[in-house]
Parts: sequence; C-alpha cells; structure tokens
Amino acid sequence: MPLVHISLLKGKSPAHIRAIADGVHQALVETFAVPPADRFQLVHQHDRDDFIYDADYLGVHRSDDVVFISILQSNWRDVATKQALYRAVAERLAENPGLRREDVQIQLVPNGREDWSFGNGIAQYVQDTVKDGVKNSH
Amino acid sequence: MPLVHISLLKGKSPAHIRAIADGVHQALVETFAVPPADRFQLVHQHDRDDFIYDADYLGVHRSDDVVFISILQSNWRDVATKQALYRAVAERLAENPGLRREDVQIQLVPNGREDWSFGNGIAQYVQDTVKDGVKNSH
Amino acid sequence: MPLVHISLLKGKSPAHIRAIADGVHQALVETFAVPPADRFQLVHQHDRDDFIYDADYLGVHRSDDVVFISILQSNWRDVATKQALYRAVAERLAENPGLRREDVQIQLVPNGREDWSFGNGIAQYVQDTVKDGVKNSH
Repeated sequence: MPLVHISLLKGKSPAHIRAIADGVHQALVETFAVPPADRFQLVHQHDRDDFIYDADYLGVHRSDDVVFISILQSNWRDVATKQALYRAVAERLAENPGLRREDVQIQLVPNGREDWSFGNGIAQYVQDTVKDGVKNSH
Repeated sequence: MPLVHISLLKGKSPAHIRAIADGVHQALVETFAVPPADRFQLVHQHDRDDFIYDADYLGVHRSDDVVFISILQSNWRDVATKQALYRAVAERLAENPGLRREDVQIQLVPNGREDWSFGNGIAQYVQDTVKDGVKNSH
Repeated sequence: MPLVHISLLKGKSPAHIRAIADGVHQALVETFAVPPADRFQLVHQHDRDDFIYDADYLGVHRSDDVVFISILQSNWRDVATKQALYRAVAERLAENPGLRREDVQIQLVPNGREDWSFGNGIAQYVQDTVKDGVKNSH
C-alpha cells in the first residue's frame, strides 16, 4: 500500500472529498504503478483554528480549499517518478473537484517493504519468507 | 517510544478501542522490547466517508472492523522482529476485542533515536550528551 | 516545509492552542532556519479515551496538558541542531501558553527534499529540474 492521509478544512461536501480521494488514488495507479485494489485512505477534517497554512509560501497562492495529501509509501521510486505523481495528482484534482493546482500540497513519507502488514499478522511484501514456504514462521 | 496511531471507523465502544490499544502495546512490549511504561497512543475515529479501505487487496478480506495501526519507531529492528510484532498484534487483537486477523493492518514509520524528545527539551535517547554530563548544553 | 502535527487533549482554549502552534513555529524558524512563511500545522484534538500517554516514562512527569508535536521534515540536520530545536520548543511553550516543560513531547519524522510538493504539481525543492529550465517536464 501506500497509506494516504487527506487533510482539509471542515465543511466541504462528501462529493468534493470523494473526488479528491478518487483523484489521488488514480494518480497513484498511473504513476506509481499501485494496484487499483491497493487503496487505503484516511480523511481528516479540521476546524479552522486547527488548520494553519501559509497562503503564499514559495509564491504559491493557497486558499481555504487547500488540501494536504500525505502518502506513506515504500520509498524505492526515483525523483522523476515522484515528480510525475505530483503532476498527476494536481491535474486530476484540477479536473475534479476543480481545485486550483496551487491548493494541492503533497508530502511523501518513506518506509520499507518490510514495514507493512495487510492483515493476518503477515508482512506480505517480504518475499523470501513466502518463497521459502515458511511464511509467518520466523 | 513508539508513537502509535490507531485509526478506525467511528462507533466502536470504548472497551473495544481500549482492548485494541492494550493489545498493540502488549505486543510491542513482547516483541520490540518496548518498556511497559513507554506507552503513547493516539486514536483517530473516522466517519464512514472519511475512512476508505479496499475490502479484498492481496486476498485479505477486510470488514468495517478494520483497524490501521501506524507505529512511529526508531528503525533499528530487523525484519524477523517486525514480523514477530505483526503476528503478536494480530493474535492479541484476535483474543480481545475479538477482531478477525484480516482486519489488523499495521504500518511502521521509521525515524532515529535522535528524533525523540520525551519532555524537558531533551533528546533522551541521545546517549553521548548524557554520558558527557553536558546534557542539554549543545 | 516541515509539516507539523500537534496532538492534545480536547478542551483547551483556542488561545492556548494558538500559542503552542506559534511557539513551535518560532522555534523552527530560530533553530532549523525554516523560513517564517513556511508554516503548515495541523491540530488534532482528542477525546480522553482516544489520548493515551504514560505519566512517568523516563522519569518525566506528564499531565493532561501534554502535547505531542510530530514534525515531518527533510532529514538533513545534525543531532545538535535537533537538540537545539527541542530546547527552543520547550522554552517557547513554557513562556506561552505556560506549559510545563515535561509536557512537551516532540517527534521528528524524516523524509527527503524530493518528497514535497507545495502546489502546482511541482517538487519545488528539487533544484536541478528548475536550473535546467525543464521544470515540470520529467
């Protein structure tokens, strides 16, 4: 997986939020080759006092539609692939729900393939244990 | 510390949530040799629209009881130890509150020993500064 | 950016929370040389059952004013600089809103310069693409 955290100001419609979640996932499928079924997303809606952002840092003009997309992901992709993801997310969210590209903030958080269990108490991405047929035994 | 984030669908009982938190901590004590008093856990209850998960990815069948357990931890343990943690968490939560093992999702997030301050403005895990008696002086 | 998550028990005043957010940011500016405009902070207020902390781990005596400050940051600073940050945050929050230094818990979460997009689908901190004038093209 990536595990995606989507943080935004409270008060957007469910359709708006769903479009963001859909667009982020489609961009991950397209650019990071994430399997379509590998979708896990947690949305955090913040009250205004709990959501602090600079409206101009780096000359990017942000509005109250700004969204922070934090993606925990096994960190083996190169810089060009990460850049492709950023472009794809911004393009998708500009299409639907119609965000300004300036309002799309993305952060990648790295971990490793051994750092995931998708259930059953197993590290599914650790290949050698599966190949050896000693899955779950050490 | 590890710092543990537990994310689940809103509406579970306090006892259910506490059992999850207890089980995760016991598993950390058993398999990661975390001191029993080293317990810091934040629970995030999400509305249904804000909690998106695939019910079948990797052939693991998840239900609305699914829980995401994200553990920020100094990343010096080997793969076998991480696998032992996953098994122990799934077993504990199967016992109490009686989760299906398929519903236990775990993600480790790595940092370093110098990345923690437990209070007083000090990096308690940075040993040399303590040894030199110049704690907190540089 | 750093992206800062501030987690605390629900029920503090907006002024209390704002003072924490201000103090954390000022400390980042002073010790991490973060630009003043590089401010992005998300506050998480937890119900008591969802906020579990040990009141004595490592001999640090924590109260219900305890605050967890998780800072996602490009991980190139040395240990002494991180220690300076911890001291500065604790000092600032002791001044205002008057927290006990024991109640200030800080965790750094590492990523890289290529792991940030501040809007427009661009990895603003990746220098070579900007220098080459091929920004956003690969």
